[in-house]
Amino acid sequence: MATTLSSAEALDWVFARPRTAKIGIVTASGAPVVAPIWVARDGDALVFNTGADTAKGRAVARDPRVSLCFDDETPPFTFVTIAGRAEIIDDLAEVRRWAATIGGRYMGEDQAEAYGERNGVPGELLVRVTPTKITAVADIAD
Amino acid sequence: MATTLSSAEALDWVFARPRTAKIGIVTASGAPVVAPIWVARDGDALVFNTGADTAKGRAVARDPRVSLCFDDETPPFTFVTIAGRAEIIDDLAEVRRWAATIGGRYMGEDQAEAYGERNGVPGELLVRVTPTKITAVADIAD
Repeated sequence: MATTLSSAEALDWVFARPRTAKIGIVTASGAPVVAPIWVARDGDALVFNTGADTAKGRAVARDPRVSLCFDDETPPFTFVTIAGRAEIIDDLAEVRRWAATIGGRYMGEDQAEAYGERNGVPGELLVRVTPTKITAVADIAD
Repeated sequence: MATTLSSAEALDWVFARPRTAKIGIVTASGAPVVAPIWVARDGDALVFNTGADTAKGRAVARDPRVSLCFDDETPPFTFVTIAGRAEIIDDLAEVRRWAATIGGRYMGEDQAEAYGERNGVPGELLVRVTPTKITAVADIAD
């Protein structure tokens, strides 16, 4: 039976394995854009890397509101959507540290350092998203 | 190696199996929202059902611009993002016909009629999205 998850349960579900987030941002012209990103958990927040000069980097600089969606796309279907506020961090040590964590999470620990080095350079950002509302329903079609 | 897909290749990848779309819309206050939806292919367009009085229904009535994202969230990772324009169809026969097709696609043919009946009622809409730009990269981390 479809079950509404608490915020804590939803975050645990999201980070139980390396799912990609689908992030929604709004362009300068007001159009929505969705793209997949890699994320890691930082307590009750979510972090991701992006470039300052990318669509995502520019969007969160204009407006901190973002939406992150995760789902299991096979029956009985589960989804988590997180509305949150993005904070931009350009401290290179932090960018690099989290880039290694995030890269290792999706590509394996042996790749972590390579991702840290690749993304720990000027122009790369860390974005920390603090959830403001979490909507999550498990086993929708059960 | 990462490969850019043509629009035709991208649509074929999307519909090779019943993946969920993550749709991005913009609320009246200008915030992005992402949610998973079921879709079907109608030629080069994509169709989905929603209610006229849902966040998605109201958003596409205000602004036809939507973004649809699909991805394979395991290595080597593939994604397709479709920017498109939404057209709202409230003809109940069309709503019902596509609701059956869409329900059958994700839940099995034996469920198709039940979904058609459930969604083929006043207040339910069919939304047809005509792609304006398709961005697709396969085997990103290869």
